[in-house]
Amino acid sequence: MNVVLALVGSKWKPTILWRLAEGDHRFAELRRSVGAVSEKVLAEQLRELERDGLVSRTEYDGFPRRVEYRLTGAGRELDAMLEPVGEWGHRFAASPQPQAAGAGGA
Amino acid sequence: MNVVLALVGSKWKPTILWRLAEGDHRFAELRRSVGAVSEKVLAEQLRELERDGLVSRTEYDGFPRRVEYRLTGAGRELDAMLEPVGEWGHRFAASPQPQAAGAGGA
Repeated sequence: MNVVLALVGSKWKPTILWRLAEGDHRFAELRRSVGAVSEKVLAEQLRELERDGLVSRTEYDGFPRRVEYRLTGAGRELDAMLEPVGEWGHRFAASPQPQAAGAGGA
Repeated sequence: MNVVLALVGSKWKPTILWRLAEGDHRFAELRRSVGAVSEKVLAEQLRELERDGLVSRTEYDGFPRRVEYRLTGAGRELDAMLEPVGEWGHRFAASPQPQAAGAGGA
């Protein structure tokens, strides 16, 4: 699990993967759809995801320059695995948590 | 996914869940089976896992005092969900990563 935590264990990366799973995005589109992330942080996270082989970046010739981000096969696999975990998290967060029992067992 | 990262997104918690999924553990047993974790850090992580409703702690009467840790239902569920993600991580780490493509698409 530590490998996956190293890959996507940050605030924005799961959301970036989730958005890119919906389709290729340009930087500005991604920034709008991910939400309150700064340009600098988003660029950094994308560089790391690209370095780690989860996202690919394609630059198109022509003017103005066009750059698109998409999930690699591994990125798509990981996103698909994390989706149910994310859903579990939402259900868990919404469910009342029992007070931690602590004293005297048989 | 951020809920789950908040719950278990630390170095030791996935391993603690994994070990407790094998059976109830006393503190010393858990410390041996988790590996190079300090007593202080393990106690802290267990307190957080208990607070978050993933681990329960039972203190047995008698001398010497006996304390056991076990997964709650939610802890067992989460561990079961994370297992394939952890296995994916091992496979990913073992597989050669393509050099990030970057220039000139059609």
